[in-house]
Amino acid sequence: MPIARVAKRLVKDSLRALTRRWNERVQPLPLHRWDLVADARGRLSLEGVELAELIQRFGSPLHVVHAQALRRNIADFCEPAPGHPPCAVYYSYKTNPIPGVLQLMHARGVGAEVISAYELWLALRLGVAPRDIIYNGPVKSDDSLRQAIAREIYLINANHREELVRISTLAHEVGKRPRVGLRVTTSGGWAGQFGCSIASGEALEALREACSDSALDVCALHAHLGAPIRSAETARGFVHEVMEFAEQARQAFGFVPEVIDFGGSLGVPTVAGLGEREKRFNMTLLGELTPPSPDASLSIRDYVRVVCDEVASCARRHGRDAPKIVLEPGRAMTGNTQLLLTSVHSVKSTREPPLTAILDAGINLAQSVQSEYHQVFSATKANQERNIAYRLAGPICSPGDVLYWSYRLPQLEPGDPLVIADAGAYFVPFATSFSFPQPAIVMIDNGRATLLRRAERFEDLVALDDTQLNAPGWDRADRVN
Amino acid sequence: MPIARVAKRLVKDSLRALTRRWNERVQPLPLHRWDLVADARGRLSLEGVELAELIQRFGSPLHVVHAQALRRNIADFCEPAPGHPPCAVYYSYKTNPIPGVLQLMHARGVGAEVISAYELWLALRLGVAPRDIIYNGPVKSDDSLRQAIAREIYLINANHREELVRISTLAHEVGKRPRVGLRVTTSGGWAGQFGCSIASGEALEALREACSDSALDVCALHAHLGAPIRSAETARGFVHEVMEFAEQARQAFGFVPEVIDFGGSLGVPTVAGLGEREKRFNMTLLGELTPPSPDASLSIRDYVRVVCDEVASCARRHGRDAPKIVLEPGRAMTGNTQLLLTSVHSVKSTREPPLTAILDAGINLAQSVQSEYHQVFSATKANQERNIAYRLAGPICSPGDVLYWSYRLPQLEPGDPLVIADAGAYFVPFATSFSFPQPAIVMIDNGRATLLRRAERFEDLVALDDTQLNAPGWDRADRVN
Repeated sequence: MPIARVAKRLVKDSLRALTRRWNERVQPLPLHRWDLVADARGRLSLEGVELAELIQRFGSPLHVVHAQALRRNIADFCEPAPGHPPCAVYYSYKTNPIPGVLQLMHARGVGAEVISAYELWLALRLGVAPRDIIYNGPVKSDDSLRQAIAREIYLINANHREELVRISTLAHEVGKRPRVGLRVTTSGGWAGQFGCSIASGEALEALREACSDSALDVCALHAHLGAPIRSAETARGFVHEVMEFAEQARQAFGFVPEVIDFGGSLGVPTVAGLGEREKRFNMTLLGELTPPSPDASLSIRDYVRVVCDEVASCARRHGRDAPKIVLEPGRAMTGNTQLLLTSVHSVKSTREPPLTAILDAGINLAQSVQSEYHQVFSATKANQERNIAYRLAGPICSPGDVLYWSYRLPQLEPGDPLVIADAGAYFVPFATSFSFPQPAIVMIDNGRATLLRRAERFEDLVALDDTQLNAPGWDRADRVN
Repeated sequence: MPIARVAKRLVKDSLRALTRRWNERVQPLPLHRWDLVADARGRLSLEGVELAELIQRFGSPLHVVHAQALRRNIADFCEPAPGHPPCAVYYSYKTNPIPGVLQLMHARGVGAEVISAYELWLALRLGVAPRDIIYNGPVKSDDSLRQAIAREIYLINANHREELVRISTLAHEVGKRPRVGLRVTTSGGWAGQFGCSIASGEALEALREACSDSALDVCALHAHLGAPIRSAETARGFVHEVMEFAEQARQAFGFVPEVIDFGGSLGVPTVAGLGEREKRFNMTLLGELTPPSPDASLSIRDYVRVVCDEVASCARRHGRDAPKIVLEPGRAMTGNTQLLLTSVHSVKSTREPPLTAILDAGINLAQSVQSEYHQVFSATKANQERNIAYRLAGPICSPGDVLYWSYRLPQLEPGDPLVIADAGAYFVPFATSFSFPQPAIVMIDNGRATLLRRAERFEDLVALDDTQLNAPGWDRADRVN
């Protein structure tokens, strides 16, 4: 072996040894963060329902919705902050569009924030009243805009200037005057395809045009920070910038918004984005990923309070009444209310660590895990030491199908069930049927499990194909276990 | 404005000016690469079928399969190289699992390479004879292995050592002796969850164990390079390493493979992976992406010849008969035989370039585009100068839904149809129904368009949900146009 290679090897080996000591100090978050309880044998349950038994009953992988946790988040968003009226809360459908989950929210007064013709259709189909629907997004079909105008939904937020023109044309056609908001982008947030920039003056210009169009009832401003909100400071700065823009518009042409829609962006306390450096540490040195500090993250209640306080304080300063506040939570509402259960299909040993645990769920169902910290547990060995580093690979036969490059878990055997925490945001909508049918979704409520969505069967994956399929006998809806 | 910011701004502006001059020199690949023809008005057609008319008829977005191009690739893979018997060709189902496309290949003698219980089921359902099926991948369910053994498929390639044990147990249970190969990994290719390493000695050890197991008919070696094969040298080196390993196994314990399965990995000449630097150039400086040089890429025929020559030459050197050669093309077979048609929903102007063209297809349907060069055309303005840089954004209301940060096209209007080339590999399997139903798939053959798969309807997206949905009247299967 050439000397350079030997030296590189030695350096890598010593760094790995150091990393092993670091790894031993990294502690996972406690189970109670997800209302999970371990029995004396180390088997996890939720409201008395054993997770391993859920897999026996409904198959693996499996999405598990925790109704009680969802109700808690709903209450935290909907209850008024001290000294303020309650905010109007519209759930971001795209985050986790499961009808059973949406219905639970709607039953408790949460509205629908939709971003496509399909989502508008779904909200109406679920019986949501038009006055409880907000329609956002950069791609709204003409048909769906006509529906939204004709049914008089609560708010259509125009994504950009050119869309205002389209909405106006369709409003003339339908013969109704829609309630319209304008999406604006603040300095710290997303731009690109979204909104009109406050800083460049485009937002003011577009708003002025909109207000002069008698076909539109321009009653709202709409903004998303985009970047995750984890501190009171971030939330305050964002709200402040939008409020200052509103004041600017008032001074410029007397615009007074009835509603300000502050979008979503609040983070999930037990999830954190992974930077490139952390990912490389995990991949190259098998360094354990550090969980976030949930208590350092702004809670839902505190977020609501900060937004309401800041809106009131800006309004007071400007000598105006506070506008009505709309919130559009996605991640923060459902992120920590779902688990993804998966099973170890095989453990592949190699001379070089780590062992590879090949799971029946990978990026096909949990794409977000590649760029976020999500805690992973054994569902049956919670009392055993997490002393083995595993590469967690998925089933789709692609080198990219690795969830984590090294993750310490108790010793795993084929068939062992694992839990991926915080699966309630962007797991279901980003799921594919890549070589493996999509799993069932169950809801745990009051200690009872109910099937919300059955697993895809093989036949479902070719149901839209117009091809004459031969049937050689093996046609039962088999599942991969 | 602080001086540092002004300076940064100036530097960025001058770099962008330089980049604009670079951009003007970047030429797209010619239309004939995809058999596309432009008429005098600049409207593209394929075998006389106008692409814009296809959208009128079948909706947008739309997958378009070009049967003739697929037949050409099939012939290139299946025809014998000079002086050699033909290779046995098995198509990698996961790359593009559309029944109509698979059937066309099977009708011409191409077998099925499957990597999941679902894909095995699909191959049998399509009438593929068991002798024309190879079963690969790291996650094979017990049920599907029993089926594969009982039906005596051509080959089960064990992904790793632990899987050999499982196959053996199931073979005992079924009472048949399956034809088994061992997946090995070469020095330049994938490792991780795949295969047993040749370099570490693990492959030899696993193979020795397998050969001593009388329940298994170990008749094959299996390898994928993984990294794209674009030159004769790469192909030759890879084949050589596998052949040398086979010889090592013969000398060690007399193993003589009847079959060597060299997997896939051949690249598509008109597609190239994008490096981080190129992506940053595109994002930050709006630098035009450079198309690959298709003629510099190893053609299918040359690839087949190189593999056959190298196998024969190694066998000769070792004084053995050449083994039977199996190939498992994915990308190289279907990649350049499909187009994805999409429409401009809106053009968002901003004071700062580029304009954003918001399309009805984004990463929900074309995830691969984020990491690969794919050519994009206007389907109706092919005779106009590509002189405007557009950011190409998708519909899913996520900042990540950007296909390219800057791409020069003729001036676009809402409704303009675009073509994304080379959509026949990893577009369909990685597709999601994220807020927008998945599109139809049509096949063009001899100037006629046939529907292979109809578009998803809104109802399809909640068909598996067990929830009582209310029906407020608007329940027709609307499509976003």
